Amino acid sequence: MKKTLGIIGGMGPLATADLFRKIVEHTEAACDQEHIHILIDNNTNIPDRTKALLEGGADPTEELQKSAKRLIAAGAEGLMMPCNTAHNFYEAVRAVSDVPVLHMIDLTRDSLKEKGVTCAGLLATTGTFRTGIYQSRFAGQIELLTPNEEEQEAVMDMIYGGVKAGVSDYDASKVQACAERLMAAGAQTIILGCTELPLAMELYALDFPSCDPTLELALGAIRFAGGTVKE
Amino acid sequence: MKKTLGIIGGMGPLATADLFRKIVEHTEAACDQEHIHILIDNNTNIPDRTKALLEGGADPTEELQKSAKRLIAAGAEGLMMPCNTAHNFYEAVRAVSDVPVLHMIDLTRDSLKEKGVTCAGLLATTGTFRTGIYQSRFAGQIELLTPNEEEQEAVMDMIYGGVKAGVSDYDASKVQACAERLMAAGAQTIILGCTELPLAMELYALDFPSCDPTLELALGAIRFAGGTVKE
Repeated sequence: MKKTLGIIGGMGPLATADLFRKIVEHTEAACDQEHIHILIDNNTNIPDRTKALLEGGADPTEELQKSAKRLIAAGAEGLMMPCNTAHNFYEAVRAVSDVPVLHMIDLTRDSLKEKGVTCAGLLATTGTFRTGIYQSRFAGQIELLTPNEEEQEAVMDMIYGGVKAGVSDYDASKVQACAERLMAAGAQTIILGCTELPLAMELYALDFPSCDPTLELALGAIRFAGGTVKE
Repeated sequence: MKKTLGIIGGMGPLATADLFRKIVEHTEAACDQEHIHILIDNNTNIPDRTKALLEGGADPTEELQKSAKRLIAAGAEGLMMPCNTAHNFYEAVRAVSDVPVLHMIDLTRDSLKEKGVTCAGLLATTGTFRTGIYQSRFAGQIELLTPNEEEQEAVMDMIYGGVKAGVSDYDASKVQACAERLMAAGAQTIILGCTELPLAMELYALDFPSCDPTLELALGAIRFAGGTVKE
């Protein structure tokens, strides 16, 4: 019997749908019943994580914990958060959870190490950067190259003014140039360190070698649940 | 305050992910917090609906009702089932739900009527056909043209041997030919009366005018929740 997964979602909703789809698509299953039981709380009441961390916005802790409890009460045997910035509140979620909480950033680091990556570029929200969540989890294991101030503004604009705003014809050429500069500086791959970025890659036809933490979380979730990852 | 939606899912999981994504993509929202709170139970313990109806397979009623109760306990204020065949168990789900249960097939019929459609082709599982769920809901309002026996075998094989089995290079030319015959016989559009069929349209590059009940359910759900459908 496979374990039931719980997804604390809504950060954003498209990223949640993306994780869900990636879990389903990568699960080895020949019929509905061989798939993994997944509970999703697309909780759009969770305040913006970046605003909370950088601008004194509403604290998302209470709503994150509500979602965790709701999912566990419904039967979830393991939790996950498809939002990088939300991992700054990981300990608060774990504190109210009597089931394991998968850590997207650790799963990403371990997967890159396995592939022999020693230097990676990181694209993420300003909130994720300032809190140093990737830096602390990667320290001494994988070197991280990051955008300069102007490039970071372009990344944030693409996330908020493009993906989250549902703009389909956004011009993402500045982000493409940033990724190319990081590769030229030694990055073996670019980590898409915000769950909206894999969506941007597709939506805006960005083209560079990348590592998708949403996918790493999906693969980790399948293995945690006792499923088989489709080759 | 928008209503919280509950999706009884897992029938199949990809169709559930498809409905979720369609709700998110069609909701007018400029940030995460303007989206709709959605709870999903991707309940892969629900037995196959077609097998139950046609082959004396396990009855899905109990698991469908469990999902309904689980979602309502978690806060859902309206339920929906992204599975056409499951609508044969609609009354059983409604019997345990003290919140409205949206009806995908009625929403589809009403949308087609609004568009002036008087004759439509219907592709669906054999279970959906034999139980006459579309026929009874459309009777006297929209004429339905249906596949012959050989064509129906091709549709079922594409659903089970293609989409549900995760086959990406399935040859769907027989289904394409069936749709073209129905159009030639007078169908103004082809109803994709199994939630795996919109996925097949994309996956296997099928090309004919179609009506997607998953999309109609998504639009109905957004309106029910009090959201605005994006133009």
